[in-house]
Amino acid sequence: MAEINAPSYVRRLIAETFGTFLLVFGVIGVALNYGGEAKPLVVGLAVGIAVLGGAYAVGHISGGHFNPAVSIGAAAAGRLPWKDVLPYIAAQIVGGLIATLIHFLILLTAEAPTAAAFAAVSNGYGNGFAALLPVLILEVVITAVFLWIILSVTAEGSGAGGFAPLVIGLALALFHFIAIPLDNASLNPARSLATAVFGGVEPLSQVWLFFVAPIAGALIAGFTWKPLFGRK
Amino acid sequence: MAEINAPSYVRRLIAETFGTFLLVFGVIGVALNYGGEAKPLVVGLAVGIAVLGGAYAVGHISGGHFNPAVSIGAAAAGRLPWKDVLPYIAAQIVGGLIATLIHFLILLTAEAPTAAAFAAVSNGYGNGFAALLPVLILEVVITAVFLWIILSVTAEGSGAGGFAPLVIGLALALFHFIAIPLDNASLNPARSLATAVFGGVEPLSQVWLFFVAPIAGALIAGFTWKPLFGRK
Amino acid sequence: MAEINAPSYVRRLIAETFGTFLLVFGVIGVALNYGGEAKPLVVGLAVGIAVLGGAYAVGHISGGHFNPAVSIGAAAAGRLPWKDVLPYIAAQIVGGLIATLIHFLILLTAEAPTAAAFAAVSNGYGNGFAALLPVLILEVVITAVFLWIILSVTAEGSGAGGFAPLVIGLALALFHFIAIPLDNASLNPARSLATAVFGGVEPLSQVWLFFVAPIAGALIAGFTWKPLFGRK
Amino acid sequence: MAEINAPSYVRRLIAETFGTFLLVFGVIGVALNYGGEAKPLVVGLAVGIAVLGGAYAVGHISGGHFNPAVSIGAAAAGRLPWKDVLPYIAAQIVGGLIATLIHFLILLTAEAPTAAAFAAVSNGYGNGFAALLPVLILEVVITAVFLWIILSVTAEGSGAGGFAPLVIGLALALFHFIAIPLDNASLNPARSLATAVFGGVEPLSQVWLFFVAPIAGALIAGFTWKPLFGRK
Repeated sequence: MAEINAPSYVRRLIAETFGTFLLVFGVIGVALNYGGEAKPLVVGLAVGIAVLGGAYAVGHISGGHFNPAVSIGAAAAGRLPWKDVLPYIAAQIVGGLIATLIHFLILLTAEAPTAAAFAAVSNGYGNGFAALLPVLILEVVITAVFLWIILSVTAEGSGAGGFAPLVIGLALALFHFIAIPLDNASLNPARSLATAVFGGVEPLSQVWLFFVAPIAGALIAGFTWKPLFGRK
Repeated sequence: MAEINAPSYVRRLIAETFGTFLLVFGVIGVALNYGGEAKPLVVGLAVGIAVLGGAYAVGHISGGHFNPAVSIGAAAAGRLPWKDVLPYIAAQIVGGLIATLIHFLILLTAEAPTAAAFAAVSNGYGNGFAALLPVLILEVVITAVFLWIILSVTAEGSGAGGFAPLVIGLALALFHFIAIPLDNASLNPARSLATAVFGGVEPLSQVWLFFVAPIAGALIAGFTWKPLFGRK
Repeated sequence: MAEINAPSYVRRLIAETFGTFLLVFGVIGVALNYGGEAKPLVVGLAVGIAVLGGAYAVGHISGGHFNPAVSIGAAAAGRLPWKDVLPYIAAQIVGGLIATLIHFLILLTAEAPTAAAFAAVSNGYGNGFAALLPVLILEVVITAVFLWIILSVTAEGSGAGGFAPLVIGLALALFHFIAIPLDNASLNPARSLATAVFGGVEPLSQVWLFFVAPIAGALIAGFTWKPLFGRK
Repeated sequence: MAEINAPSYVRRLIAETFGTFLLVFGVIGVALNYGGEAKPLVVGLAVGIAVLGGAYAVGHISGGHFNPAVSIGAAAAGRLPWKDVLPYIAAQIVGGLIATLIHFLILLTAEAPTAAAFAAVSNGYGNGFAALLPVLILEVVITAVFLWIILSVTAEGSGAGGFAPLVIGLALALFHFIAIPLDNASLNPARSLATAVFGGVEPLSQVWLFFVAPIAGALIAGFTWKPLFGRK
């Protein structure tokens, strides 16, 4: 059946779509159906498992970014050709939207008020979240640190070896534990857009910050990784 | 003592019985004795550990399916001969029933009302669960995604290597975090049957869905894995 | 400094003492200081981490049993000479007692009522625990399954490789999730004795069951592993 | 760009600064924003993930200590030249302070009462914590055991291999589960100093204990590791 396989480049984009679908499906599926004190723990573990699962499954095909900020940071660090960034981001956004669309269908058939449910799991600032400035600082910092970790464990000569996807997934879980109480944790424009689209005016009007801050953090990390951590 | 060892084919079925026993014993043992907000977390971790434990222990003998839907999906993807599917499913169903039988004995000697206890940990729709249609969509989607992950991490040339059972177990935990609040999480007809048998009329009358939906999802994933994710 | 190193056999016993100390120190340290719904989760994770930590640290020295039932099961399966069983058990009991002694000292200086605290984390049946018979069934079954897993993942030709200690620790966590609500989870006579000694008359009068049942389960698994799961 | 890379020795100190930053940023970020019964679990998992993430990312550069007590214990065990200890400690203290400074900025812009918030996540004794003596015993014991584990899994000929950072991170999580209810868990002077500086008079007046006790435990473990666990 080899002749009907996806050609190599399409296969990479399918992998990014699948992985981002899994990430968003996991994090939102848990966030929608779960409450109480343990929520950040379970949501964080969910996103961590989704990312490590996707990275072990299809990371060898596409690099396993599943996040526009990661693709941009990888390009800044010289790990991904800049010309691949836009197709990767498009594939990631499609994957995230498929994930929230399926949750939307599940909620719709259950006759729940879907916009409010999606607004509650969207990223935001103010109104129950932390204010704009702390959220901005937070998302820049955690995305930069996340990228430094990713670029380190996937570098040639890294000591992480086969553990790299596990470390990346767990690190993302950690940053969700920290950020969920403050802004529902983004680090990922595709995840933020996927819920904002179904969440109504307020999440959509704030989604810009969850493009700007993670991408800024990723660029900082991408351009500084080699001088700070690279091998001479 | 080699001469009294199980012959090779029986040994594979013993491995499937053991692994499915472990899966159902774990998930039901925790679900029966645990309540509160953190329940989906603990039940999910339990099923994940049970599956990865069984897969590391006996996966090299039988492939470590422990789930009729996984065996059917593996057959659809050309990883298991179709003629092995029915014996595997029989072994899995026996393993699941032994697990719930032991929990039944423990509850019986404790003089608890066992049918109600087993009904509360059975899979279902309506009456406190999500409605039929969202449950159907959910189980098809999560079982398909679960199979895509399994088929990817166990494929030749996969980057997952020895991490494959860990990834599979954690992925199952993730899908339990998502699905427990909606339908108690199946993805596995043997698990659903094992509790329904001790749970009375209602779980038994609904168990068909937890055969149909996981198997449908597994077939979709099995037949599409190679075109989507396979190597040219 | 090689000349003052412990001779080889003493070194194995030190490793068993250390590992059992770590196991009991971890599980009791968490059980003493923690309450609420999430307690079985945290105690289970603690014992799992303690065992996998000890096994990765000193398992290559002694085999990493940290549990009289495991040493007896290993002997029954032909993995440990029977003549080593008693010294191993002695080392394990010493390790467990050192762990509870340190927690006793911490509690004593804090002027807390230590006997009640240790009774609350001891294993037992009746009086808030499940009744004798279900506890007996439970401990036999979970210790047997635990041993089958241990013997499988540490067998020659096992697919578990370097993951074996991780699997063993996580499996023990799983059995703690299940058994803590019923009897505080033993599977390990050294752990049961270590708390009973500081817990007063009732735990001491019931500790026999947590010798008999885990050892019975371990013997069943040890003698049946090869016919059920061994390579021809 | 190789010519602008950090020279080798500076690169090691950057790695220690980064790893300690990550450790303190993770543990304090979660501790500040999280409450309820599950808090020790989430904080413990956070610190464990931070340490294993840092160790897989930059451990091959500097050894991955991220903790003055670990560097001192490593020196005592002959694994780090004594002349490197002070530069390592300086780098670690800087990393910890950067982490709390960022959290301080986030809290400041949010106009929260920062000193009280940092005092609540600082290490201490008495006044809601356990008394001085039990805290002293606890920190000596857990840091010594932590170092024995670290020195064992990173020794030549250890069975831990690539799992060493995972084991070290999880072990630190375990000791946090145990110690958070008693003294907020230190084992690490750099972590204790980083919060005390922003926490006001009381944490600062007690921080000496969290230098003395972890370092004492580390020295005990460092000097005894080879006779107890070393290979002849």
